[in-house]
Amino acid sequence: MDPLREVDFAKGGGLVVAITQDAGSGEILMVAHMNEESLRRTLATGQVHYWSRTRGLWHKGESSGNVQDLKGLYLDCDGDAILLQVEQRGGAACHTGKRSCFFRKLEGSGGERRWLHVGVQVFDPEQVYGR
Amino acid sequence: MDPLREVDFAKGGGLVVAITQDAGSGEILMVAHMNEESLRRTLATGQVHYWSRTRGLWHKGESSGNVQDLKGLYLDCDGDAILLQVEQRGGAACHTGKRSCFFRKLEGSGGERRWLHVGVQVFDPEQVYGR
Repeated sequence: MDPLREVDFAKGGGLVVAITQDAGSGEILMVAHMNEESLRRTLATGQVHYWSRTRGLWHKGESSGNVQDLKGLYLDCDGDAILLQVEQRGGAACHTGKRSCFFRKLEGSGGERRWLHVGVQVFDPEQVYGR
Repeated sequence: MDPLREVDFAKGGGLVVAITQDAGSGEILMVAHMNEESLRRTLATGQVHYWSRTRGLWHKGESSGNVQDLKGLYLDCDGDAILLQVEQRGGAACHTGKRSCFFRKLEGSGGERRWLHVGVQVFDPEQVYGR
């Protein structure tokens, strides 16, 4: 049986949540969506393809060279979320040039909370995307 | 300024994606949603509250005792996804009794792919929820 039949694309109108984790460090790099086509392309090519609601099929890193090589793929209990373990080429997943998109950490307590920028800056987005 | 103003609840119709990671091991435990109320309750109590589209405000672990103590909270670059680092009491996040909801791993290649159940079984759901 085709294992992708166990993925519940219908619940999310054709899309599932895709969480991307660095296969080595376990760091969460980003979260996006996949449709069936992007999941099949990911498996066929070994490089992660997402589905962007504005851009359509999205071969991550195609323009920057920072592609994600697939190392492991997991499905959650109710079949509507996928976990991708990847090797991130170039070391940065975020379009801001940070290693992870989750670079804002909530610090403090009570009324004194604020977002602290904790991410590692890997590249200058103007140099990569401004060419 | 209230830091929660930087969270973009509007894009997802009042909800953001919430990814939950074990603060110690880095393992991804589950993914769910939060609305503003559940995020504020999480910060006020130190225990994770999600928003379930069927059940409403959801204090995770309230019935099983397997609550999640918040250890860290991150926001992604476009503000519509949150990463929660937690200490999972009872050692299992999934309603199936597995440590993680992502217990199905895709194995093999080409037409021989299949889901392998790799998760650690921590409790018997019938004993926990059947009481």
